[in-house]
Amino acid sequence: MSSKRTLRVDYGRITSVLYVVGTELVVNLNRSAPPKTKYFSVKCTDNVQYIISPLLQTTSYLSPVPLMDNSVLLITMKEASVHENDNKLSVWYYDADKTVLDKAVLHLTGVDISLDVDADRDGFVEKNNPNKNTWKWGPHGHGAILLVNCDAESLYKKRPDHERNIKHVKDMSPMVLRTKGPAKLPEGYKLVLHICQSDGEKIRVFISSGKRDKNIHTDMDHYPLVLYSASLSKEIPYLGNDEIKFYVEGVKFPDKDFDGLIHINLSLLEPISEGIPETPIFTDAVVFRVAPWIMTPNTLRPVEVFVCSTKDNYKFLKGMKSLVESSGYKLKICHEYMNRGDRWMQDELEFGYIDSPHHGFPVVLDSPRDQQLDDFPYDVLLGPDFGYVTREPKRKDVSSLDSFGNLEVSPPVTVNGKHYPLGRIIIGVAFPTASKGRNMTKMVQDFLWAQTVQEPIALFSDWLEVGHVDEFMSFVPAKDRKGFRLLLASPDAGYKLFKNLQNDGHGDAKLFEDEPTITVNEILADKILQDENNYSQSCIDWNRDVLKRELGLDDEDIIDLPVLFKLVEDGGQYRALAYYPDMVNMIVLGENLGIPKPFGPKVNGVCALEQEMVSLMGNLGLTCTFIDDFTSYHKLMGEVHCGSNVRRSPFDFKWWNMEM
Amino acid sequence: MSSKRTLRVDYGRITSVLYVVGTELVVNLNRSAPPKTKYFSVKCTDNVQYIISPLLQTTSYLSPVPLMDNSVLLITMKEASVHENDNKLSVWYYDADKTVLDKAVLHLTGVDISLDVDADRDGFVEKNNPNKNTWKWGPHGHGAILLVNCDAESLYKKRPDHERNIKHVKDMSPMVLRTKGPAKLPEGYKLVLHICQSDGEKIRVFISSGKRDKNIHTDMDHYPLVLYSASLSKEIPYLGNDEIKFYVEGVKFPDKDFDGLIHINLSLLEPISEGIPETPIFTDAVVFRVAPWIMTPNTLRPVEVFVCSTKDNYKFLKGMKSLVESSGYKLKICHEYMNRGDRWMQDELEFGYIDSPHHGFPVVLDSPRDQQLDDFPYDVLLGPDFGYVTREPKRKDVSSLDSFGNLEVSPPVTVNGKHYPLGRIIIGVAFPTASKGRNMTKMVQDFLWAQTVQEPIALFSDWLEVGHVDEFMSFVPAKDRKGFRLLLASPDAGYKLFKNLQNDGHGDAKLFEDEPTITVNEILADKILQDENNYSQSCIDWNRDVLKRELGLDDEDIIDLPVLFKLVEDGGQYRALAYYPDMVNMIVLGENLGIPKPFGPKVNGVCALEQEMVSLMGNLGLTCTFIDDFTSYHKLMGEVHCGSNVRRSPFDFKWWNMEM
Repeated sequence: MSSKRTLRVDYGRITSVLYVVGTELVVNLNRSAPPKTKYFSVKCTDNVQYIISPLLQTTSYLSPVPLMDNSVLLITMKEASVHENDNKLSVWYYDADKTVLDKAVLHLTGVDISLDVDADRDGFVEKNNPNKNTWKWGPHGHGAILLVNCDAESLYKKRPDHERNIKHVKDMSPMVLRTKGPAKLPEGYKLVLHICQSDGEKIRVFISSGKRDKNIHTDMDHYPLVLYSASLSKEIPYLGNDEIKFYVEGVKFPDKDFDGLIHINLSLLEPISEGIPETPIFTDAVVFRVAPWIMTPNTLRPVEVFVCSTKDNYKFLKGMKSLVESSGYKLKICHEYMNRGDRWMQDELEFGYIDSPHHGFPVVLDSPRDQQLDDFPYDVLLGPDFGYVTREPKRKDVSSLDSFGNLEVSPPVTVNGKHYPLGRIIIGVAFPTASKGRNMTKMVQDFLWAQTVQEPIALFSDWLEVGHVDEFMSFVPAKDRKGFRLLLASPDAGYKLFKNLQNDGHGDAKLFEDEPTITVNEILADKILQDENNYSQSCIDWNRDVLKRELGLDDEDIIDLPVLFKLVEDGGQYRALAYYPDMVNMIVLGENLGIPKPFGPKVNGVCALEQEMVSLMGNLGLTCTFIDDFTSYHKLMGEVHCGSNVRRSPFDFKWWNMEM
Repeated sequence: MSSKRTLRVDYGRITSVLYVVGTELVVNLNRSAPPKTKYFSVKCTDNVQYIISPLLQTTSYLSPVPLMDNSVLLITMKEASVHENDNKLSVWYYDADKTVLDKAVLHLTGVDISLDVDADRDGFVEKNNPNKNTWKWGPHGHGAILLVNCDAESLYKKRPDHERNIKHVKDMSPMVLRTKGPAKLPEGYKLVLHICQSDGEKIRVFISSGKRDKNIHTDMDHYPLVLYSASLSKEIPYLGNDEIKFYVEGVKFPDKDFDGLIHINLSLLEPISEGIPETPIFTDAVVFRVAPWIMTPNTLRPVEVFVCSTKDNYKFLKGMKSLVESSGYKLKICHEYMNRGDRWMQDELEFGYIDSPHHGFPVVLDSPRDQQLDDFPYDVLLGPDFGYVTREPKRKDVSSLDSFGNLEVSPPVTVNGKHYPLGRIIIGVAFPTASKGRNMTKMVQDFLWAQTVQEPIALFSDWLEVGHVDEFMSFVPAKDRKGFRLLLASPDAGYKLFKNLQNDGHGDAKLFEDEPTITVNEILADKILQDENNYSQSCIDWNRDVLKRELGLDDEDIIDLPVLFKLVEDGGQYRALAYYPDMVNMIVLGENLGIPKPFGPKVNGVCALEQEMVSLMGNLGLTCTFIDDFTSYHKLMGEVHCGSNVRRSPFDFKWWNMEM
């Protein structure tokens, strides 16, 4: 850091100097030479080294050399002292006759001081990494990482750990102060750890005693808090040849006003005299980046599937249970006392995770939607090694577009040579040209953008009555091409399928099981419905073009699913709803898809829509299970995906290895 | 921008399509082919071009070729249409026997649309610059520039122009909408100019009629405002083969929450049907960067010098007048009715400027200090081609460190290969380790950092009672080395000079003209004063080390001036004040320096401090004029620099040519 320090020396007396190994002392020789000085010489003990600048035509400064206006003495020490003042350097001043005028004597005490972190990201705190105070992305990058300690180790009066003092050491990043030198610092010198005000609101630093250190995996209820928002600097004991361990936790995620980087500084302060503040003679610093919150796309392995149980969704639950269990995953049911009749498990929360070289855990992002499921993420999910984060805008700023059916993430992609190894977040907003329109609230958008590792894409979803991107798009795994396919709802594909049916003599086949049913012929004869679907298709095509561009997709990476929409009027504005169960709104569990049963026209007892779906997905090696969500979800303007949520394994790829 | 657009085509009817030259229409042929289609062919008029993907083994699609699942037709047009629907393309569909099943016909209307700005920074708006929607620093960079319209063209009920509608076209950046095609757009299509909410708070866009355009340098009282915070989108007329000129002004400077970039979008909207929002089929966009506020170092040519006239500063004024006039510059005196006894012209404001390829003007930054001189920057300086900006933190957050004697800027420097062609801003703050301490208010610091082109350096100035960096440092021009020298107050240099005097038998020489005087011997005998100066020297040395590192300076770039300090107690804290007039606190006017007359010890009738100063500055070819500020400034804890201010010429170097 400040590796060169200007040092004052006075002739006629002994000056005691505390020196930090690795730095350089700069003495302006002319500045404080006695009057009439023309020559000088320098002597020192073995552990001390010096250079004179500008260099003279001599190899030794033991005999007098000319003092010039700009003569500077640069002093270093090879290693730390054993005892205080065990090293010496003297400058002798001579007049024109080379008669000694006076001398300045330095008594030097060398100490080695290093504030250390895991800057090379291997899970261990190395010594004095030269890159410890800068942060660089990528596999050849460096810089330590911090987790927001947002899980709750104790369920008693549960709160996220960063709001209280019960915590696990493993959720925190270790930081070590290593010192070498005499048993104690010279009188009046002290070591101070300090952070700036804005960083004080983003981290907390705890100090561990040497003994507790050996017991690293226990709780640390009693480790004292040394740095936080109300304590920005703290004197730290100097223990001679020893080390002191600290634990650092994040308390805030990156956001619009926080780029994620925080700095911790260590200063060695020199006493001057009573009533005068000490001045720092050495400063060391380390940097951490707070780990971003990361979403998990459909292509990652499922861990748990969440659905709600309500009075009326027995059929749906049965279908989901069968699908999830046969796929080999865990189904977790949120019961009525907790969901209070709110079945939209997708909308109230988004599963993600945070990760660091030493530890990681899932973190739920709680939506500002806050309907009857509101308490579920905090009361049920938050727990040991399960974190929680939320953003709470004003009620008036929250719309249907803030439900997290409107927050998805793509599988990893490469776009014009730029890699997104963690995929890209996808949200739905109003049209950029719309003077009015519903949007995802700025507070959540700011949070998502600030995570930076899954750069978001904004689609146009306000054309839909409910307004969620999961109403017209999904991703499924594929073994070929980019490892996935983008599925898009397609009225054109629907019309094409129905026209083929009509053409093949199945125009009388009926959609829907119960009244009112409708035939293929009737649908094709409805010119208004055709216009509404042309509009819906053009909205989807607009999004298709954006997705192709922003995800680097070809037409071959996209599959059009036969889905029709209809428009409904809502306050003078016409917006779209699925005409029959919206098959794109599916749950993806590895190679098994849970798809809303479409109740399409039957040919020889087989639903033509299901058959098309089975054929399209079968080409990818995926298996379709059709789940009857008609009464309990579709009629309430949602489907299988809206009514479920999946917690998935993290990416194998480590976010800090991204090239930014 | 969105250069590919997915297009729906229906067989059995004619589809009218509006095409924008330079884009590509993508038709998924299979998606809407009639049932049983096995082959297709394509025909079109001369101005239309198409490609089939995947490419087939044929050179002509005039005869039937096989339709595949992934057959895509890519359509472009060479140039804009003369009349609506003057171009055609048809797709013919065939069954297995190559019998025609049906055809889809497109009637194409081509338009050329471009929203243009001066992206190449030559002062003229070129046509469709491919880089117009991104911003890149440097001589090979691109991206248009916007000024904050913060001057006041009219002095009647004066307010900055961006707060009212009287303005000069030249303060604004031109933007041109160029169109080519039929005389009008097909029924229902419209052009809309739009910005996002956050940009709406940072700019205003005015539209000029074609006629006013020719009269570009007149006032534009009546140019209608089309985009601003309360109008984020506006329909713009399409005029066929013509152009429409807009004028854009900035209303906010870059700041913590604003990186300076703003985007203006133009969308072409397609009508669908009544009650359904139009969808954009083409979007063009341009980007502007708001010009930063730039400070001017001592090495730039002075234009005007400002001082206050008070009841008691006649001597000072006389000295300044003589210096400024003999140096060939203009002296502007702020009289008592305006300054109300506040003489600290340096502290209430900082002169700077803003610049763009088409125009630039000086801008005063008004300090939050807000003492009796408070009205001067707004009431006197703000005017035609003289801008005004301020930041107003809460009173409780303002300290003596917010006076702009604590805001300086270095000459251009290169630091470890990094160029700062506009120098670096220098401010003074509390020590990083200090738990308490005075600081420059965060609001002003944020503003300074956000300008980005003169990356600030924070020095430690809280050790001084007044707390301003201009109490211990200044820059003077030099013909050699880096083009300047850093001058630092140096107690060591002072003691060295006094010891030499004592040594030469002048220990009885007296400082100060009136009682109480003090001799050189008395000063050298005062051990407490020596300690206080050792402390002051170590504080300055700390800053010296920071400045060497952050400005890339060698010891040879620094000159130590003989200045002593003393400590005074203030609320239990000891802080420093100049012991005699602080010679580093000077005014720099080209090669002429106005220096506080130090009233040092006289040898043969000549002040030894003045003599040393004349010798040090004379080596650089600079002339010293000593100005008596003892009673009216020094005794009030300030000197020449604190009591004056200089408006200087802008840099020749253009800020947008910086490599960032």
